[in-house]
Amino acid sequence: MTGLEEVTKKIRDFRDERDWMQFHNPKNLAGSIVIEAAEILEHFQWKSPEESTAISREKHDEIASEIADVGIYLIELADNLGIDLVKAIQDKLIVNASKYPVAKAKGSASKYTEL
Amino acid sequence: MTGLEEVTKKIRDFRDERDWMQFHNPKNLAGSIVIEAAEILEHFQWKSPEESTAISREKHDEIASEIADVGIYLIELADNLGIDLVKAIQDKLIVNASKYPVAKAKGSASKYTEL
Amino acid sequence: MTGLEEVTKKIRDFRDERDWMQFHNPKNLAGSIVIEAAEILEHFQWKSPEESTAISREKHDEIASEIADVGIYLIELADNLGIDLVKAIQDKLIVNASKYPVAKAKGSASKYTEL
Amino acid sequence: MTGLEEVTKKIRDFRDERDWMQFHNPKNLAGSIVIEAAEILEHFQWKSPEESTAISREKHDEIASEIADVGIYLIELADNLGIDLVKAIQDKLIVNASKYPVAKAKGSASKYTEL
Repeated sequence: MTGLEEVTKKIRDFRDERDWMQFHNPKNLAGSIVIEAAEILEHFQWKSPEESTAISREKHDEIASEIADVGIYLIELADNLGIDLVKAIQDKLIVNASKYPVAKAKGSASKYTEL
Repeated sequence: MTGLEEVTKKIRDFRDERDWMQFHNPKNLAGSIVIEAAEILEHFQWKSPEESTAISREKHDEIASEIADVGIYLIELADNLGIDLVKAIQDKLIVNASKYPVAKAKGSASKYTEL
Repeated sequence: MTGLEEVTKKIRDFRDERDWMQFHNPKNLAGSIVIEAAEILEHFQWKSPEESTAISREKHDEIASEIADVGIYLIELADNLGIDLVKAIQDKLIVNASKYPVAKAKGSASKYTEL
Repeated sequence: MTGLEEVTKKIRDFRDERDWMQFHNPKNLAGSIVIEAAEILEHFQWKSPEESTAISREKHDEIASEIADVGIYLIELADNLGIDLVKAIQDKLIVNASKYPVAKAKGSASKYTEL
């Protein structure tokens, strides 16, 4: 078992020991991903992009813990829906590569619709 | 290399080929995780929890693609900050286990502060 | 002055007394609206839609306070961008009325693209 | 009737003509506020704070329309819960004034817990 498979099993066991599947429908998991993601962003709320790099070092453990929260619900959502997260990402990178060809997208912060 | 390590390398290469590291500070990545997470939730916007299960089946590929978007930025943020995502999740599950002991949390949707 | 104009002035004064305009660019305000909105949602995190109605009664003051947070940043963002919030909403309701004609949308939770 | 009262009535009528109250429980409204707020943020996704000011001018009407979306659901949520939005904001500004006294908070982007 890879680390990801192992942690997926732990997430599943954690939920099932607590009989929480009844609350973990896709809508609730998606809501929880947003809530936890907003908690990462909150660490940088009024800060500049440059400061966000420094803050990430100072608050390394707190931010790792918020990132883990998003990861837990994201991995569980994928698992519940029978989605192979690594494969879904590989597929998406192929889609993104055609939306953002290097020649057009290099050094640009624009959305593909505006390139 | 495991699947997760391999995909992390692909995400890194994708970004660097486009010279995007300049935009990928922690604040921007955190904002992007929230934006993409909200797009998962949007599929279930006015729907009941039960309907969200059916929708996840009907729109399996679209939802896999949104989940991948969150995954890409989450994995990149962890990678940029030197955080081992799998280890961070394992650590967090230990913390959560003490916040939500089975005996108290079983079958309950309450936050640990209200158990 | 109406209540909304008066509170807009108070929000502006609050910010300027603290010399915070330097942090209140549109991106930071948009990020803050998301962060505070996620805190409203957090009150209902694993709860059913029905329970969310009961919780809103029990935690009336806390939820009013979260709603106020979103309102403060939303009103300030509109104010900073020279947008008349009431007029923008009236304009949007006209757009929405043509996207969601009563005959098609009545009793439906579907997005206009799927009606 | 002030502009805010008038627009609140229009939002209510819009919903009731479509028989949508059945979907507009507090949890769904809170989710919709987050979703629409993330759409404001998306306009500034990889942009600098400075660029976000310029973008707000160029895309004035689009951003006004996203702000209106958040406003519609926020006003409706407050209305449904019997919360006077203007009063809730005034109350919150008083709380914030004691959390962020001018002498300590002036020119600082820190959270009150870190002042």
